[in-house]
Amino acid sequence: MTDFARTRSLFHMPAGVIYLDGNSLGPLPVAAADRVRHMMTEQWGQQLIRGWNSAGWMAQPRRIGDRVGRLIGAPEGTVVIGDTLSIKVYQALAAALELNPTRRVVLSDNGNFPSDLYMAEGLLGSLDRGYTLKVVSPEEIEDAIDETVAVLMLTEVDYRTGRLHDMKALTQKAHSAGALTVWDLAHSAGAIPVDVSGAKADFAVGCTYKYLNGGPGAPAFIYVAPCHAETARPALSGWLGHQAPFAFDLDYRAGAGIERMRVGTPPAIAMAALEAALDAWEGVDMQDVRKASIALADLFIRDVEARCPELTLASPRDGNRRGSQVSFRHPNGYAIMQALIARGVIGDFRAPDAIRFGFTPLYIGEAEVRAAVDAIADVVNNRRWDAAEYRKMAAVT
Amino acid sequence: MTDFARTRSLFHMPAGVIYLDGNSLGPLPVAAADRVRHMMTEQWGQQLIRGWNSAGWMAQPRRIGDRVGRLIGAPEGTVVIGDTLSIKVYQALAAALELNPTRRVVLSDNGNFPSDLYMAEGLLGSLDRGYTLKVVSPEEIEDAIDETVAVLMLTEVDYRTGRLHDMKALTQKAHSAGALTVWDLAHSAGAIPVDVSGAKADFAVGCTYKYLNGGPGAPAFIYVAPCHAETARPALSGWLGHQAPFAFDLDYRAGAGIERMRVGTPPAIAMAALEAALDAWEGVDMQDVRKASIALADLFIRDVEARCPELTLASPRDGNRRGSQVSFRHPNGYAIMQALIARGVIGDFRAPDAIRFGFTPLYIGEAEVRAAVDAIADVVNNRRWDAAEYRKMAAVT
Repeated sequence: MTDFARTRSLFHMPAGVIYLDGNSLGPLPVAAADRVRHMMTEQWGQQLIRGWNSAGWMAQPRRIGDRVGRLIGAPEGTVVIGDTLSIKVYQALAAALELNPTRRVVLSDNGNFPSDLYMAEGLLGSLDRGYTLKVVSPEEIEDAIDETVAVLMLTEVDYRTGRLHDMKALTQKAHSAGALTVWDLAHSAGAIPVDVSGAKADFAVGCTYKYLNGGPGAPAFIYVAPCHAETARPALSGWLGHQAPFAFDLDYRAGAGIERMRVGTPPAIAMAALEAALDAWEGVDMQDVRKASIALADLFIRDVEARCPELTLASPRDGNRRGSQVSFRHPNGYAIMQALIARGVIGDFRAPDAIRFGFTPLYIGEAEVRAAVDAIADVVNNRRWDAAEYRKMAAVT
Repeated sequence: MTDFARTRSLFHMPAGVIYLDGNSLGPLPVAAADRVRHMMTEQWGQQLIRGWNSAGWMAQPRRIGDRVGRLIGAPEGTVVIGDTLSIKVYQALAAALELNPTRRVVLSDNGNFPSDLYMAEGLLGSLDRGYTLKVVSPEEIEDAIDETVAVLMLTEVDYRTGRLHDMKALTQKAHSAGALTVWDLAHSAGAIPVDVSGAKADFAVGCTYKYLNGGPGAPAFIYVAPCHAETARPALSGWLGHQAPFAFDLDYRAGAGIERMRVGTPPAIAMAALEAALDAWEGVDMQDVRKASIALADLFIRDVEARCPELTLASPRDGNRRGSQVSFRHPNGYAIMQALIARGVIGDFRAPDAIRFGFTPLYIGEAEVRAAVDAIADVVNNRRWDAAEYRKMAAVT
């Protein structure tokens, strides 16, 4: 049984804040600042260049990759950390397209995070070989999988609504139609149980700064299914994906398996923060997290709907069809969220009209949910949002 | 006049170490650990998601880009920070090739850093349109620039020998032949005076963990000449290069100018370390740095040659044709370097036979150079390197 009192004590939460935005940026793990300081002063400061070996910086992307792998059902040695999620999407899609060379359609949906679509657009534009990026609604995806599709590229949990795709069923359908899959787990890893092996996903990517609490702009991860690991060609063929980076050969030879998805020099300072953050997952059972997150979100939906008739639920009502976040729509959603943030209830806004709240049992419980609903009811029902200062602020990620 | 006693006080140097490897990884700036701690506890910890605006994380890549720009002769608003150098090479080359669409040759030399060649190989492999990556020796580059060349892609300072290309002359020759240029400034930025504007470079890229002391795996930079800034198509079209990232459009519209070379979410923790490191450059005149570095390297060459007849100079003897590093060849170079590192004189080894030393006047002076030569003379002349433990260690970056 996961001890959520213990996990809660591992995170710093500022006084007066109810944080329902861990789905966008996880909070500071208490241990992270000391860990990074140690890395900087004792490793970088004292070991200097030697730290690449003596402090293990060079091995970190694989070591941390395995820790993330355990949260998404990936076997040892199939996940590596580095770059940003957008870069990892590009790598995965480029490799997947070459593994399915006769087809010309990339299928995605309009609930995919825009950057994934943009990266696909950029890649297909470079390839310039008649590729089409076909974007349908999430509900149309299943029917749109046909024998023209080279790659099905989806985000499992819709960033706008929390709607959850059935990764296993869609992957199976894609495979039956001869397509490969690229799954973005940005809102899945650490949020819900994920089993990339069981679902037979071909490629998966994700970020570590949301539910994994690695810090703003923390490096991303990529998973390659063992059946593709030795055949996937890395389009971003950087020296650390080379079989022998320090031989300084003039020609690229792809490293073994997941190694080839490494690109440039790994960000050792950021890795230290991420590694500290991942300690919070020791002894945590993802099934317990899932159960707690559904309970919190169900409570939230029930109370908001009971008290705020102006708000319209934008997320699936069935917890099993949702990730770990809930959105409501309101024409003045932007100003409402600014008013909430001003009083310390932090969620976020997603254009055009969604206010979004994440439920993260590692550090959020029922008391926070109830207090958040009180604030939302006051802001919405008493039009507290209708003030100039809440209309002008800039959006946050 | 640059006050090198002041700059020296800004860096932490472990006791018993003579560090001649700042060309690979700069040392810890004294202020960096506190700056990062502040960023983590006061910004991330207290401001949480709001930090993207309130702490300025979102604007950092441009703000820091301008600071790096001042060291390489780039106007305000033409440099942005992010990703790794390998990724920035890919972006620059991909954009340059599209700006010169009728040609099919990328010209480089075997003194370019291998990762640059690998990234080019990966890109050309993806494009699959009959491109050739032509790699000649550095001495042959000038003659190899002809009307088949789409892009001349070079590293200004050879990582092996310190040999310096004439960026201005080669760029002029490239332009006369109708080619564009991509310059890698990894061993130039902070090492020698650079003037990308004066040289009319089209694209330039570089890393910030060598002479700029940003820390292991610190993010890279890219410069795009103003004449290309609005026409270069970003192949890696990530959301933060979009005109309006938070509008969450489904289609990519490239941001204004250098903004489009941003890709994913910026690494805010690493940026804090880099920003602290760049403070060391306030009040520093690159001409003074250049003069001091040539004097240190000249002294080093003179004394090593006088005392170690077994070592063969691999770098240009003329300081004006060198970057800020000096290499010597020896068949047992690898073991020699390990023996030196074991006694605290840290340079590095580059296959097949070069021992390499960087001269960084910000924190290294004549006393260190003399002590290093004493150690080298003892290790080489008395065969101290000929011990099993110096032959087995793994190479470092």
